[in-house]
Amino acid sequence: MKPNFTLRLRVFNLNCWGIPYLSKHRADRVKRLGDFLNMESFDLALLEEVWSEQDFQFLRQKLLPTYPAAHYFRSGIIGSGLCVFSKHPIQEFTQHVFTLNGYPYMIHHCDWFCGKAVGLLVLHLSGLVLNAYVTHLHAEYNRQKDIYLAHRVAQAWELAQFIHHTSKKADVVLLCGDLNLHPKDLGCRLLKEWTGLHDAYLETRDFKGSEEGCTMVPKNCYVKQQELGPFPLGIRIDYVLYKAVSGLYISCKTLKTTTGHDPYSGPPFSDHEALMATLCVRHSPPQQNPSPTHGPAESSPLTSVLREAWAEVDQGMAQARWWATVAGYAVGLGLLLLALLCALAAGGWIREAALLLWTPNVGLVLGAGAFHLFHLQEAKSLCKTRTELQHVLGRAREAQDLGPESQPALLLGQQEGDRVEEQ
Amino acid sequence: MKPNFTLRLRVFNLNCWGIPYLSKHRADRVKRLGDFLNMESFDLALLEEVWSEQDFQFLRQKLLPTYPAAHYFRSGIIGSGLCVFSKHPIQEFTQHVFTLNGYPYMIHHCDWFCGKAVGLLVLHLSGLVLNAYVTHLHAEYNRQKDIYLAHRVAQAWELAQFIHHTSKKADVVLLCGDLNLHPKDLGCRLLKEWTGLHDAYLETRDFKGSEEGCTMVPKNCYVKQQELGPFPLGIRIDYVLYKAVSGLYISCKTLKTTTGHDPYSGPPFSDHEALMATLCVRHSPPQQNPSPTHGPAESSPLTSVLREAWAEVDQGMAQARWWATVAGYAVGLGLLLLALLCALAAGGWIREAALLLWTPNVGLVLGAGAFHLFHLQEAKSLCKTRTELQHVLGRAREAQDLGPESQPALLLGQQEGDRVEEQ
Repeated sequence: MKPNFTLRLRVFNLNCWGIPYLSKHRADRVKRLGDFLNMESFDLALLEEVWSEQDFQFLRQKLLPTYPAAHYFRSGIIGSGLCVFSKHPIQEFTQHVFTLNGYPYMIHHCDWFCGKAVGLLVLHLSGLVLNAYVTHLHAEYNRQKDIYLAHRVAQAWELAQFIHHTSKKADVVLLCGDLNLHPKDLGCRLLKEWTGLHDAYLETRDFKGSEEGCTMVPKNCYVKQQELGPFPLGIRIDYVLYKAVSGLYISCKTLKTTTGHDPYSGPPFSDHEALMATLCVRHSPPQQNPSPTHGPAESSPLTSVLREAWAEVDQGMAQARWWATVAGYAVGLGLLLLALLCALAAGGWIREAALLLWTPNVGLVLGAGAFHLFHLQEAKSLCKTRTELQHVLGRAREAQDLGPESQPALLLGQQEGDRVEEQ
Repeated sequence: MKPNFTLRLRVFNLNCWGIPYLSKHRADRVKRLGDFLNMESFDLALLEEVWSEQDFQFLRQKLLPTYPAAHYFRSGIIGSGLCVFSKHPIQEFTQHVFTLNGYPYMIHHCDWFCGKAVGLLVLHLSGLVLNAYVTHLHAEYNRQKDIYLAHRVAQAWELAQFIHHTSKKADVVLLCGDLNLHPKDLGCRLLKEWTGLHDAYLETRDFKGSEEGCTMVPKNCYVKQQELGPFPLGIRIDYVLYKAVSGLYISCKTLKTTTGHDPYSGPPFSDHEALMATLCVRHSPPQQNPSPTHGPAESSPLTSVLREAWAEVDQGMAQARWWATVAGYAVGLGLLLLALLCALAAGGWIREAALLLWTPNVGLVLGAGAFHLFHLQEAKSLCKTRTELQHVLGRAREAQDLGPESQPALLLGQQEGDRVEEQ
C-alpha cells in the first residue's frame, strides 16, 4: 500500500419491496433496477426485501458482466430477503439469523416467517480487508404502541455484537441496510455507540436527495401516507454506516438518495429510496483519525444507551414471562375442559355439543402450549441479551471509574480489567 | 511479553448430564463436582448439559472464591446447557445458536427444544487474547441410521465458521465440548480442517485416562451398554481442541480423563468422562510453528472433506424438500376431507361420525402445515450451508490450481483470488 494511496468505494443500497404477488410492478422494477446497476457499475450493491429467489437469479444473470460475484442469504421459511452483488471477488461470506424476530401468531405481519438476519461479506481491496454487512431488522408497525420494540432492540444488539466480534481484523467496516429505526431510536444509538460506526448522511459534506435524507417519502407513489404517521416529510430508516481502523481515514465524499422516483425521474424502484454513497479510504496518522477502531472514545453516551437498552429488554422479558404464565394457565384450563367433555360424552349427556366443543378445546390446549413454549424461548433470549448488556455496562462503568484515559483501552479489551461478574 | 514467556493454562471440560428429574444423583454429583473444581482451581472450567439454571447458580455460589467470573449461555426453550467458570476476568462473551438442531416432533429426543449453541468467551491472559469456545452438538441416537447426520454436519460447519470469523484477532483459540462426533466422523474432520484446531488427545505426550481417550466408557455406572453400540471400549466424543497464531507455539503438556469414576475413585461426576488438560503457550519463530493460524497448510484433505460434507448436506436438503412436499400434499388432502365432513354434517348424514372425525382432521391440516413449514426452513438452512461449503470448495480448488505455495495465502485470504462465484 503506497503512502498516497486512496481507495474509492461506490456503494448502492436499496430495500427492494419485492414481495411476490403483493408488491406492485415488481417485475418491471427489478428489471429497471438491474439496468441501472449495470449502467452505474457500483463496487457493491446491497439489497433487502428480495423475497423471491427468482428475482435474485434474474438479477444475477443480468448483472453477471458488471458484478461477477453475488450472494443470496437464505434463512427462515421465506428467507432473509438479503442479497449482494459485487464487482470484486467475495473472499468469504457468512450470516447470523437474529434469535428474536416477532411472533409466529402475528401472521399478518409475517416478519417471524422471514428469518431476518445480518449477512457478512469479506472482500480484499487494494490490500485492505473490507467487511461489508447487510441487514434488515423487524418492521415497525405502530410507533405509538410498538409491541416489537424489545425485539428490535435485541436485534440491534445482536447486529452490533456480530459486527464487533467478526470485524476485529477488518481494515474497513461497512454496514448497509434497512434498520427500521429512526436515527435517534434506541436501537440505532445502541448500534452506533457499541460498534463506533459513522452515519454517511451525518458525515458527508455533499448530500443530494430527499429532505433530511429520508428513505421513505410521501412523494413516492408506492408509499401510503399512513405508513409515515406523524412524519409528513418522510422517515429515514435505511442507512450506510462505516468505520476504518486506526491508521486509515474513511470519509463519505458524496451521498445521494432517490427522491420518490428512479434516477431518470421515472417510476420509483421501490417504496424505499435508494442510497448511493462514494466512500474514500486513505492513510491517516493514528492521532488524527476521527473514526475509532472499535467502540466509542467516551463511555458516557455508551453507558447511557446501554442502560436504556437494558431497561427496554428487561421490560420485554417481564412481558414475555407474563405471556408464558398466562398460556400455561390456559393449557391447564383446556385440559380440565377436555376431561369434562370426555366425561359428558361418555355419560351420554349433551353428547353432540360435547363432540362439537372437542375440536376448539384441543385447539386451545395445543395453541396455548405452543404459545407458552414460544414465550418461554422469547424470555430466555431476552434474558441473554440483558446479561450481555449488563456485562458491557459493568465494564463501561469500570472504565469510567478508572478515568478517561483508560476508557477506550479497557472497553476495547487492550488490558485486563478487574474482576467482572455477570448477573 | 518477555521473550522467554510461557503461559500455562489448566482447562476442565465435562458434559454434566444434568437433566432435572431424569439424571440420577444429580444434586450429589453437582455438589461433588463443585468441591473438585474448587480444589483443583483450573483456569477455565467449561461445562455442558447443565440444563437447570439452579444447578448453575448453585455452582456459581460455591465456586465464587476460586472462579470469580462465570457465565450461563441461555438459548432455546430449555437452554443450551452450556456454562463456564473462569479464574480470570471474562472480557467479552457472545453466543451463536445453531440454525438446525433436529426436529420439534421428535419430542422424545428433545434436542430441538434445547437451543444447542456455541458460546464464546474472550479472555486476556499475560497480554495474549484467548478465545475460548464451548459447545454441544446434536446427539447421535442411531449410528447405523442417523436421521440427524446432515444437521450435525451443518452444526459442525456453523461452529467452524463461527470460530473462523470471530477468532481472527485471537492469539490462542480453545474449543471444548461434547461434539457428539467420533474423531474420524465427517463433522469432526470438517471442523478440524477448516479451523486448523489440534486435538489435545492426539497431540499430547502425557496422557492418563481411559483407553483410547474415550469419554463414554462401559465402566461408568451411568452408561448403558446399548448407548455404546458396537464400541465395547467406549467412544470418544468430548474434546479439547486448540491452536495459536503464528509466532506462538501451543502444546498440550498433559491430558487426563476420569475413568468411569470420579478422580477419588468415587461415583462418577456424570455419564461422560471429564477432560483435564494443561496447555502451554510460548514464543516460537513463525517458521517453526506447527499450529497454523487459520485453515490448513495443505488444501487437499480440506477439499476432500468439503466435498464429502457438501454431498451429505445436499442429500439432507433433498430429504427435507421431499418431506416438505409430502406435507404439502397432506395439507391439501386434509382440507378436502374437512370440506367433505362439513358437507356430511350439514346434510345430516352420519352426523356424529363426521363430528368425531372433525378433530383429527383439523389436527392433520395444522400438523401437516407446521411440518411443511418446518421442512421448508430446514431445506433453506441446508441450502445455505451447501452454498457456503461450495464457495470454500471453489476457493480451495483455485488454491490447488495455483500450486502449493499459494494455497495457504489464498485460502486464508491474504491476497485477492480470481473471480469467485457461488452457486
